[in-house]
Amino acid sequence: MGEIVFVGLGLHDERGISLRGLEEIKTADSVFMERYTSLMPGLSIRHLEEMSGKRLRMVSRRELEEENGKTVLESAKHGKTVLLVPGDPLIATTHVTLRIEAERHGIKTRIVHGASILSAVIGLSGLHSYKFGKNVTVPFEDENPSETPYNVIAENNKAGVHTLCLLDMKEEEKRFLSIHEALETLLKIEAKRKCGAVTMDTLAIGIGRAGSDKPEVKADVIRDLLNHDFGTPPHTIIFPAKLHFMEAEALIFLAGAPEKLRDTAT
Amino acid sequence: MGEIVFVGLGLHDERGISLRGLEEIKTADSVFMERYTSLMPGLSIRHLEEMSGKRLRMVSRRELEEENGKTVLESAKHGKTVLLVPGDPLIATTHVTLRIEAERHGIKTRIVHGASILSAVIGLSGLHSYKFGKNVTVPFEDENPSETPYNVIAENNKAGVHTLCLLDMKEEEKRFLSIHEALETLLKIEAKRKCGAVTMDTLAIGIGRAGSDKPEVKADVIRDLLNHDFGTPPHTIIFPAKLHFMEAEALIFLAGAPEKLRDTAT
Repeated sequence: MGEIVFVGLGLHDERGISLRGLEEIKTADSVFMERYTSLMPGLSIRHLEEMSGKRLRMVSRRELEEENGKTVLESAKHGKTVLLVPGDPLIATTHVTLRIEAERHGIKTRIVHGASILSAVIGLSGLHSYKFGKNVTVPFEDENPSETPYNVIAENNKAGVHTLCLLDMKEEEKRFLSIHEALETLLKIEAKRKCGAVTMDTLAIGIGRAGSDKPEVKADVIRDLLNHDFGTPPHTIIFPAKLHFMEAEALIFLAGAPEKLRDTAT
Repeated sequence: MGEIVFVGLGLHDERGISLRGLEEIKTADSVFMERYTSLMPGLSIRHLEEMSGKRLRMVSRRELEEENGKTVLESAKHGKTVLLVPGDPLIATTHVTLRIEAERHGIKTRIVHGASILSAVIGLSGLHSYKFGKNVTVPFEDENPSETPYNVIAENNKAGVHTLCLLDMKEEEKRFLSIHEALETLLKIEAKRKCGAVTMDTLAIGIGRAGSDKPEVKADVIRDLLNHDFGTPPHTIIFPAKLHFMEAEALIFLAGAPEKLRDTAT
């Protein structure tokens, strides 16, 4: 009986993987990769294959979710099998299901962690890590008119904690929700709900391409963020709650926030 | 004018660094490292120096906090300066202060992310990432009888979100708060407060040595966790809120939780 090693690719490109992760690939009997849970725009599969000396086999959402990762499980019965996933593994519930399925079949599993958007946004924004509440994913508007993201932002704000909004993607269709689109969606819900959680005057932080050499990080009221160019995807948004004065300083110096932000911090 | 690149070392040992992080060290003019914000028990400085061909200079808490990172800032005025930090950089507020200080002096800063305990515990436990509320650090009892951790657990629980408890450390004294000690501290506060947030029958998940080859992950009621051997530090605790049935399955299969957990999940 083999094993499955879930290896995190980290952020942005193939150089986001850890040294330990690369070693695991080199010593694997089979290596699979999924690319649909997060966008890594700079990723070169060829470069990763050259560095590791191993052939990488792509697995689709269909193979992992509808077919319960049968291919990966089958391979793991016969030898050491690595599944490469963007970011830190097992943040997406689909991987957890596969891991449980493996253990249920007596296949051992291990994790080699990678950098995750969940902690990267903390460093990029300079906000306090212990002030983040639960995160939420903003879906494409056309298919899912969910008010959940709006509700999470409103509840977190009331509780005095920041909200990280992940933006949905459809890798198969090369569609990635942008900061502008997500803000428009939230503003439409605001127009209906009128709780004041996401208005033109609400402060938010847009982050483009976290983990790349040139991430775009901009803090401003939504009115002005809508005119800001965040470049290519992936995008992320943080809705901060009431700021500590050191957080305001961080947003001013590290995210180009307006200086008047100081007056609202405590 | 040079720059400061904050490079995350990831978890456990020097192989937690990303390929991009190692490249940044190789091309740096000066490389500093701090080890006091998180314990990386397997870290070999010599191995990191051999791999990178660079001499690493340790910076103490005193140098970074009391002297505002003067040594690092001075070095960054003259060339590319890397500051290596455990985990993902800038989760600790002391690094944010240094980064603001640098930008204030016209020194550019960049971040190379690393795996963080904040996301690692999600994968290790199998809990849903979007159900984590704000995290909190449990301090040593002798110096700080703070009830904050207890309050955060109680509030998060009421709001239906999980709480990650980081456990304090004093690198200079080689003291690392253990799961047992932290639980005892919380039980003492419970005895005083009687809110029922942390009792002998409360479910919690203890995690030892996240990011190592042999992390110890155990979910059980506190009564039984107190008898469980989590091995050497670092330790972490999660207090889960009401579980989704898939989370209960994950805890049973991946963290050895009692099977009766299924009855309490929804």
